[in-house]
Amino acid sequence: MAGSEFEIIRRYFSPFGTKRDWLAVGIGDDAAVITPPADRQLLVSIDTLNAGIHFPQHTLPIDIGYKALAVNLSDIASMGGEPQWFTLAISLPSSDDNWLTAFCDGIAQLVDKYDLTLIGGDTTRGPLSITIQIAGHVPTGQALLRSGATVGDDIYVTGQLGDAATGLLVSAGKLQTDTDSQKAFLHALNRPSPRVATGLGLRNIANACIDISDGLAADLGHILDASHVGAEIVNDAIPISGNLRQLNLSDEQLQQRVLFGGDDYELCFTASTDYRSEIEQLSVSLQLPITRIGSIIKEPGLFYLQHGKFQPLPIKGYDHFA
Amino acid sequence: MAGSEFEIIRRYFSPFGTKRDWLAVGIGDDAAVITPPADRQLLVSIDTLNAGIHFPQHTLPIDIGYKALAVNLSDIASMGGEPQWFTLAISLPSSDDNWLTAFCDGIAQLVDKYDLTLIGGDTTRGPLSITIQIAGHVPTGQALLRSGATVGDDIYVTGQLGDAATGLLVSAGKLQTDTDSQKAFLHALNRPSPRVATGLGLRNIANACIDISDGLAADLGHILDASHVGAEIVNDAIPISGNLRQLNLSDEQLQQRVLFGGDDYELCFTASTDYRSEIEQLSVSLQLPITRIGSIIKEPGLFYLQHGKFQPLPIKGYDHFA
Repeated sequence: MAGSEFEIIRRYFSPFGTKRDWLAVGIGDDAAVITPPADRQLLVSIDTLNAGIHFPQHTLPIDIGYKALAVNLSDIASMGGEPQWFTLAISLPSSDDNWLTAFCDGIAQLVDKYDLTLIGGDTTRGPLSITIQIAGHVPTGQALLRSGATVGDDIYVTGQLGDAATGLLVSAGKLQTDTDSQKAFLHALNRPSPRVATGLGLRNIANACIDISDGLAADLGHILDASHVGAEIVNDAIPISGNLRQLNLSDEQLQQRVLFGGDDYELCFTASTDYRSEIEQLSVSLQLPITRIGSIIKEPGLFYLQHGKFQPLPIKGYDHFA
Repeated sequence: MAGSEFEIIRRYFSPFGTKRDWLAVGIGDDAAVITPPADRQLLVSIDTLNAGIHFPQHTLPIDIGYKALAVNLSDIASMGGEPQWFTLAISLPSSDDNWLTAFCDGIAQLVDKYDLTLIGGDTTRGPLSITIQIAGHVPTGQALLRSGATVGDDIYVTGQLGDAATGLLVSAGKLQTDTDSQKAFLHALNRPSPRVATGLGLRNIANACIDISDGLAADLGHILDASHVGAEIVNDAIPISGNLRQLNLSDEQLQQRVLFGGDDYELCFTASTDYRSEIEQLSVSLQLPITRIGSIIKEPGLFYLQHGKFQPLPIKGYDHFA
C-alpha cells in the first residue's frame, strides 16, 4: 500500500512539480495558474494509454510511465514545439508502492531529459489508465502542421519503421528470434524516442509534419487529407533496421509491417526539394537517419512503387472501433 | 455502431470545436495551437470520471457528459476564472450511437452555456472513463487560491450541502422518499451547477476559495492546510435543502451528510468581514444562497459548535485508496 490518494500525490507526483517563473501556482490548488509567454503560441495535446489496449497487461510499469509521456512528447515534437509542462490523470486499480516507484522512474527519464514540469493531475481508482496532457511552446506562426504539404515536396521519415510493430509480436510471444533482436524490438515498442530535437530543427524547413503512431500509411494519409494532395512513395526506400531485415519476411509481410505497423513515433514530414542539403546536415548533426521516401503529387491518394509501377495503397491504420 | 474512431470524432466531438480568434489550429492536428491573451493568466485543471467509481454504472449518458464537464468547470469557478477551452480524453467499451448522442447532449448543455471550445482529445477503447482538461482565464494575479485565508475571515458556502450525497443513496436504491424529493436529490448528484458566476463575483472579495467535491470538512480542510490557519464553523448554520430537512435525520446523520458528503460542487470561501454587504448583494444578484457558516481562527484544526461548545472535527473526505 502506497497510502492515500493525497499521500500518492505527495510522495510520487509532486516531485515532478518543479517551480518555474511562469508557474504562479502548481500542484495542490483547484487549478494551476500559468503566465503564458508573450511571443509564443501554446501547443496542447492529450493522449490516453489503457491497459490491455495500448499496452499488454504484463508491460513493466517503468515502460508504461516512459511511454505515456513519450507519446505525448512525440505530438509536441511533430509540431516543432518545445515541451514545457504536463498534467497526469491516472486511474489505478490499487495503490502499490513498487508499481508507482517504477512507473515514476519511467516518467522521470523524460521529465529530466526535457526539463518538464508536472502542473497538476487527478489520481483516481479504476482500471489502469493513464491520460497525459502536454503543452509546449512554439514561436508564433511557426508550428509544423499537417496541412502544409505542397506538390513537389519530398517526403521523409526519421529513424526506422516496423520495429515497434515487431516488438508487439515479441511481447505477445508470437515471434521467436535471437535475444538481442528481441530486446531491440521490445525497446522500439516500449521506449520510443520522441523526436523533439528533430522537430525543432525542422521549424523553418518542413512544410508538413506528423508523428507515426498509427502506421506510415495512415499518418502520411492524414497529411495528404489535410493538405489536399497525394503522394508517391518508394517502398524500398522506407528505412528498416538490420534486425527487421534479418527476419527474412516476404515482401508482403515486410510491407505490411512498415506501412501499417504503428507505435514507431518517428516523424514523417514533407519539405521543398530546396532543403535537401539542410535536411542531410540535420540528420548528421542529430546522428539520426532521415530518409527521403517519396514525393507529394497533385493526384489524391497514396501510391507506392512496386514492380516498377506506382500502385494505389489503401490508407488505413489502427482504429479503436474498427 | 457509431463507426470508426475518426467517424466518432467527426460526428460527435468536432461540432464542439468552435473556431476562435485565439485558436490557430483546433481538433485534427497532433496538437492544438493557441495564442494566449497578453494580460491573462491561464488556469488549467484536469478531472477524471470512471464508471463504477465516480458514477454508478447505470448513470444516464446525458448525466455523465454533463457532469464530466461540470466538475471541471467547478474547478475554474473556484479559482475565479472564465472557462475557455477543454480537451476530452474518452475511453469507451464500444462505439454506440445512442450513448454518444446522449453523452454529447449533456456536454452541449454546458458548452453552450459557457461558450466553450473543444480544442482536441483522444478517443480510445477501454473501460468507460472520461478525462477532461479545462482551461480558463483570469486577470494576472487575481486567481482565488486555497492559501489566502486570513485569521478573522468569515467562512461562506454557496447553495446547499448534502443533497448530492443523498442522491447517491437514492441512486443506489438505499433511500425511499417521495418522488419529487428523489428527483431533486438525483438532480443534485447528476447535474451540479458549476458556480462560475459566483467565482467571477468573488474575484476581489474572497481571500481563499475551493469547490466542495470531497465534502465540506475535507475541502475547507484544504483551505486551512494551505493557509496555515484553523476554522470554527457553526453546524446549524450550514445550509441544507427543505428536502433534506424533511428526511428527519438524526443530528449525527445530518452532520455526517453535510460535512462529509461530497459531490455538491458548491463553493466554500473566506472573506474579510468588511465584505459582508458586498457578499449579500452578490447573493441577491445571483439569486443564490451564500451563507456565512463560521470564522477563520489562528489555532490549526477544524472546530464545530455543538451543544454550545466548539469541538474538534476530524478532517477527512473521500479517498480513492483509503
